[in-house]
Parts: sequence; C-alpha cells; structure tokens
Amino acid sequence: MTVEYVDLKENMTVQDAIERIRQIGLDSETINICYVLDAKRTLVGTVALRYLLTNAPDEIIGDIMHENVIYINTLMDQEEVARQFQKYDFTAMPVVDNENRLVGIITVDDIVDILQEEATEDMEKMAAIVPSDKPYMKTGVFETWKKRIPWLLLLMISATFTGSIITSFEDALSVCVILTAYIPMLMDTGGNAGGQASVTIIRGLSLNEIAFSDIFKVVWKEIRVAVLCGITLAAANFVKLLVFDKVTIPVAAVVCLTLMAAVLIAKIVGCILPMLAKKIGFDPAVMASPFITTIVDALSLLIYFRIATGILHIV
Amino acid sequence: MTVEYVDLKENMTVQDAIERIRQIGLDSETINICYVLDAKRTLVGTVALRYLLTNAPDEIIGDIMHENVIYINTLMDQEEVARQFQKYDFTAMPVVDNENRLVGIITVDDIVDILQEEATEDMEKMAAIVPSDKPYMKTGVFETWKKRIPWLLLLMISATFTGSIITSFEDALSVCVILTAYIPMLMDTGGNAGGQASVTIIRGLSLNEIAFSDIFKVVWKEIRVAVLCGITLAAANFVKLLVFDKVTIPVAAVVCLTLMAAVLIAKIVGCILPMLAKKIGFDPAVMASPFITTIVDALSLLIYFRIATGILHIV
Repeated sequence: MTVEYVDLKENMTVQDAIERIRQIGLDSETINICYVLDAKRTLVGTVALRYLLTNAPDEIIGDIMHENVIYINTLMDQEEVARQFQKYDFTAMPVVDNENRLVGIITVDDIVDILQEEATEDMEKMAAIVPSDKPYMKTGVFETWKKRIPWLLLLMISATFTGSIITSFEDALSVCVILTAYIPMLMDTGGNAGGQASVTIIRGLSLNEIAFSDIFKVVWKEIRVAVLCGITLAAANFVKLLVFDKVTIPVAAVVCLTLMAAVLIAKIVGCILPMLAKKIGFDPAVMASPFITTIVDALSLLIYFRIATGILHIV
Repeated sequence: MTVEYVDLKENMTVQDAIERIRQIGLDSETINICYVLDAKRTLVGTVALRYLLTNAPDEIIGDIMHENVIYINTLMDQEEVARQFQKYDFTAMPVVDNENRLVGIITVDDIVDILQEEATEDMEKMAAIVPSDKPYMKTGVFETWKKRIPWLLLLMISATFTGSIITSFEDALSVCVILTAYIPMLMDTGGNAGGQASVTIIRGLSLNEIAFSDIFKVVWKEIRVAVLCGITLAAANFVKLLVFDKVTIPVAAVVCLTLMAAVLIAKIVGCILPMLAKKIGFDPAVMASPFITTIVDALSLLIYFRIATGILHIV
C-alpha cells in the first residue's frame, strides 16, 4: 500500500484539480484516478484524470465525481484484495478504514506480487511443506528442515496403517507372493489419480471457478472420468500381465479389478476432501496428493486383499 | 493487447499533446504513458502524463520525451512478458514488431491473468496432468480423461519396474514377510520427501529465484536437509518399530537405514532432475512428485533388499 495519491476536495474546480496534480502528481503512484475527500478525510468520490481533461476547467469536482466508489477495507485479507482487482480490472483501488477514511491506495503491481506469493504458498502446501515467505536460496538448512519435517512425520506415521493392512494379510501373501509385486504399481497409480483430481479441485477453488454447491456435479464428473481412466489402465495392464509377466488369468483379474477400484476411490476422495476442507474453513491445499495418497493406499490394499481372497480362494 | 493508446508526434507541443489526450483519452486503456511515433509509426519515445502536466505548455514533445523505451517484441512468449512487468513494475508496456513499429500496448491487468494461468499450468503439470486452458467446470468428461490418462499410463508402466524388483527378491520376502509391511511407508515417505524438494525447486526456477549455476549449492543444501529429515524420521520410526510393532533390532535397523537412504536419494533426485530439465530445455514442472516418486520407489526398494540381505543374512 502507498500513501502517495492525489487527493482533491469536492468544491475544487477542474482547473484547481489539474493544478493540484501538477504540484503533487510527480510523487504519486498513480494519477489515473484522483480521490475526493471531505474535511474528515472520508472518501466521498473518485475522478479519473481522463474525465478532468475532457471537462471544462470551471466544472466543480463534486458535480463530476464518481460517487459509487469500490474500495478495500483495511481488514480485508490479501487474497480477497487480489480477487477484487481481478473482478474489476482496476489498476489502483483505495483502502479505507472502518469510518470510511482513506488510508492509502493499492496498485495492481502489488497485486501481481501477492498472486505469485499465494500461488507459491498453495504449491508448497500441496507438496506437504509448511509454507514460507522466504526465497529458497535465502532459507537456511535448519529452517528448511523445520518446514518439511512436520508433514513427513505425520504422513510417515499414517503410512504405517497401510503397513498393518499388509501384515494382517501376511498369510495370504506368503501363499501367493506374486501379489506383492503389484503393490507399488497399485499404490502409485492410486496416488497419481487422486493427486490429479485434488490438485485440479484445489486450484479451481482458489480461483473461485468451483464452489461448494458444485459438489455433486464435481463428484459425478470425477466418477465418470475415473471409470474411463480405470478401464484404460486396466486394459493396458491386463495385456501386460498376461503377455509379459505370464501370470494366470485369475491373478491378472485381481490386479486389474483392484486397479479400477483404486482409481475410482482416488478420484472420489481427491475431489471430495478439498471441497469439505474449504466448507469447514480448512485450507483445501493441504488436502493434496500426499494426504490423499495415504488414504487411497490403505483403501486400495484392503480392496486388493479382499478381491484376492475372493477370487484366488487363499485364506 | 490493446490498440487503444495515446500516440503523439515529436514536433507537438505539450499543449497539443494535452489536446490530443482530451480527444482520444476516454477510449484509451491507459493515459499514464503516451507513445511518441514518427511518420512510419516507429516508436521513438514515451512521455508520462505527469510530465506533460508539469511542463510548460509550449515545450516540444521531442525535447522532453524519454528515449530509452523498454518494449516488448511481438514474438516474446507470455511468461517472458510477465517477467518484464515484474522486473520494471510498469502498469503498461508498448509492443513493437521487428521494425520497431508500435503495434499495441499491454497493461498490467492482462499480466495478472497470464500469471494466474501460468501458475495453474505449473500445478497441473506437477500433478501429472496435461495442462488445459479451460476452467474445470467447463471441461467435458472425455476431455478431462484425455488430459489425465497419458501420465497415468506412463507412470503405471514405470511403476511395474518397481514391482519387478520385488519379484526378484521374492525368496527373501517369503523368508521374512514382515519386510513387506514396511514397503508402503518407505515408498510414501520417499515420494513425499522427493516431492517437497522438486516442487520447491520447480517454483524457484519459474520465479527466477534459482538458476542452473546454483546447482551445487542446491544439492549441498538438500543433502544437509535430507540428513536432518532422515535422522528425525528414522529415530521416530525406530522407537515405533521396537515398542509398538515389537520387531527385532536387526529388522528395525534395516527399515530405518533404508528410510534414511530413501530420503537422501529422494531429495537429491528431487532437486537435480528439475534443474537438468530446465538446462536441456524441458519443462521442469513435469519433473515433479509423480515422476520422482516412481524413480525413488525403485531405488529405495533396491536399497531395502540389499540392506536386508546384508544385515538379516537372508538369500
């Protein structure tokens, strides 16, 4: 925010106003828009410089000013400010306090920096990093560790649940060890499919392209996309399993059915969690790939072993 | 880009210039800066409106104009244009063709949209999606599938290599099935650690905060961060393995040593790949978590089984 703006009074003439711009205009951030204030410095209107130049010199500012001023309140958060700028396409907006007194102006070049910062923060959260406002090269090793370790620890502990699912099916696995070989592929594909959905939804929410009221439309769409993706991946995998890995048809069926189920669950979890987070006032960006991967891993493995015990008749 | 700008001639007086702004200023996108053109419409200088207002009416434009104009070439890509705006903090910049003729101006509110689009594109690439310029709610199911399936397929096929590593250690696994239980935790933690490094580096590269020449500094920093993270995670895990899972000390040692190695490899791969990609002219954003996860998974499992066969003496 800057306090270098052109302030005018209602009773000035256009001539007076241009004179005032001549005096202080060189220091002001913008002279495209001048701000009309009363004796208490309350913002009563704005005049665009172009209107000053196209009006007769003896017109009174109070008569030609624009009275429906769109302003920013000092308490508004910076993301909301950026959104106002994008909505109205202004190059500068006035900032007022609760008594409507002008305290400064914000210009669009500040907004560019804010938007870049917000995007960086979202990316950091999506990558399970506690966001920082320092550039990478200027952050110390210890500080970087502090930003990264909380989520690594939390996600590591959550991942041990996935491990305990494997332990509880240990007997089934020792009968049919080949099943173990497909765990990484199932986990990675589920994680990727979920990450695609969650990142798309998180970004859509942050750009206000998606609202909570769209939740049913979003879920329905993700289900259809998941079915298409699941069939494509399962078909490719089925061929690969039979031709290259030379597994039996029942084993191939177990792997491919699980794959389809994992993609479906991943897409549904991936789109619902960020939207619910937003609804209850949490940051949706935290619900990105790493978080969803952990949930999807556990669910996919449960399904894997259930289908395996069903089809392969192993205990 | 817009073609609505104020053009002046060198031989105009300040008075003439203000008169011209009065005539066409209302339609122009910005009148903060006026563009001085010669007979061939070559851009020869610029004058800020504030200077017009503070100069005597009979001054000649050619004498007061600013001649070192920073301009944008019609062939410049939009990311580069956005970078120029951020560098100079301008609200508008002229666009010229190869003969230096003015073809229009770009205002900073266009840049805001470009930066948002670029950030969205980077996030999509990081989430293994082929970028699209349509908002989510307006993209059809089939189109969404087309954007997501290529990377899902490619990464699924790569993940099968990880599977074949497990197959080749099948005998070791059937002797010590408990080792299987820690595969998801090792894979997820490696993936998360690598994702943190790669996303940080990709964003730093895109904001020009990190250059290729920083590669040794970056790698050295990631190694130190990885050692700190690795020790913290291994310590937490060692306690958990002995107290809750009640495994033997050698098994706990195998898991924790692998964990440290996986974090170290993940951070190194995660920072080097995006920088190399940028160097050889590839988009660094593609080298994000999903891609790195696949590589780190395979390497971590190889290390896991090597350490296991070494410490536990299983064949």
